Amino acid sequence: MENIIILGSGNLASNLAVALFNKGYCISQVYSRSLENAKTLATQVGAKAISNINELTQAADLYIIAVSDHAIDELVEKINFDPKAIVHTAGSVHISSLNKFSKHGVLYPLQTFTKSRLLSFKQIPICIEANSRNLKQYLAQLANSLSDNIHEIDSDKRKQCHIAAVFANNFTNHLYAISELLLKEKDLTFDLLKPIITETAAKIQNISPREAQTGPAVRNNIEVINQHKKLLSVPELENLYSFVSDSIIELHKNTNK
Amino acid sequence: MENIIILGSGNLASNLAVALFNKGYCISQVYSRSLENAKTLATQVGAKAISNINELTQAADLYIIAVSDHAIDELVEKINFDPKAIVHTAGSVHISSLNKFSKHGVLYPLQTFTKSRLLSFKQIPICIEANSRNLKQYLAQLANSLSDNIHEIDSDKRKQCHIAAVFANNFTNHLYAISELLLKEKDLTFDLLKPIITETAAKIQNISPREAQTGPAVRNNIEVINQHKKLLSVPELENLYSFVSDSIIELHKNTNK
Repeated sequence: MENIIILGSGNLASNLAVALFNKGYCISQVYSRSLENAKTLATQVGAKAISNINELTQAADLYIIAVSDHAIDELVEKINFDPKAIVHTAGSVHISSLNKFSKHGVLYPLQTFTKSRLLSFKQIPICIEANSRNLKQYLAQLANSLSDNIHEIDSDKRKQCHIAAVFANNFTNHLYAISELLLKEKDLTFDLLKPIITETAAKIQNISPREAQTGPAVRNNIEVINQHKKLLSVPELENLYSFVSDSIIELHKNTNK
Repeated sequence: MENIIILGSGNLASNLAVALFNKGYCISQVYSRSLENAKTLATQVGAKAISNINELTQAADLYIIAVSDHAIDELVEKINFDPKAIVHTAGSVHISSLNKFSKHGVLYPLQTFTKSRLLSFKQIPICIEANSRNLKQYLAQLANSLSDNIHEIDSDKRKQCHIAAVFANNFTNHLYAISELLLKEKDLTFDLLKPIITETAAKIQNISPREAQTGPAVRNNIEVINQHKKLLSVPELENLYSFVSDSIIELHKNTNK
């Protein structure tokens, strides 16, 4: 049985560890700087929790680094043996950050994770990269046992995926947050928007978002745009409204809808 | 049996007419400036298609105006009799735009509609308003037969719902479109983002979007933000990236996360 060690205990680490555990992989250790956090995850996957990097066993088949991007370098520095195989899971971090290890790669699940929402990996795109053909095959096999959606993608393209995901996930969520604020201003519940949010996300599963675009901006309806801007009580929101509207107008002008 | 006339043949008109028809309402006429468009919808709901407003029968129980916002005034002007009851379906248009009719109101389904995607109305919030208690009761009953999610909302609040929906729907969809462009730039398929888009929309069904916010901006991670900005090849996108990131930082600073 494969023996995997998880370094990290956050949202991605938790989701990945549980998914691997559920597929029958043996998670032997969970490392986190906080022993408490390590324990929380370790107990879910029958692993040993450690918070001292020197307690890492050297016998595992795979070490999965799933810590924040900026913590990777520091962690890598502290690992003072050459693991059988080691990967990180970060969209924006180049594979070369693991150069000091002989067999290294990347396993990047393109999804937004929350500890409290353990997701099925079945449809999650997993982007893999490795510094050897053997490791790539091994990672593909591992990824395939979790998901039907495996992609071999290099560091340059993976970074682009990550930026695109910032637009489609982080920025989108921010727009949801703004719409929640706007409703609160008038004592209206955010529940009112949940069906349209669901449908907006559902629609682009089959129609290109460019084709699906509706609203005053794509129709270049300056009258409604100005009316809306006047109604926005916070100057920042008025600016954001203008900015995104201009961007919509620009996109649909340039590309000749 | 209720006898309803639909004025309009677009995305909302089509979805609403079909939903009413499926619930057993009789749609007697469908009016559109384009007879062809009127016919396409009319045949789906067993109605007569007309493109001359003078052919409107005066006997219907309810006239539903479902044309673009800016076309409402012109249409209202052309209706030269006093209907039993008449409503419009626009988020941004005040109820008073129908003042010339004795019994008038608003029936606003808060959703994004496409002709080619006929939606169930079961969970769609329907916002109603009327100039008489009788008509309000009538509209509530009608709306209830379509949806479990009825709200009595005045014109002022409805306008706010509409602006909030512009953020949550139109602007969100634009971010999807940008992410599609970014992927295309590197020959990557937009399919890669579909699961994260679905999950982003699913997450806020239970967690407030403010709480669900992730990404470099909410962590105020200037390093990653600058790295991303450098990678964006189009100046407009770089500006949009900065602008939305600043807005995220601002929101989470002001409201003391």
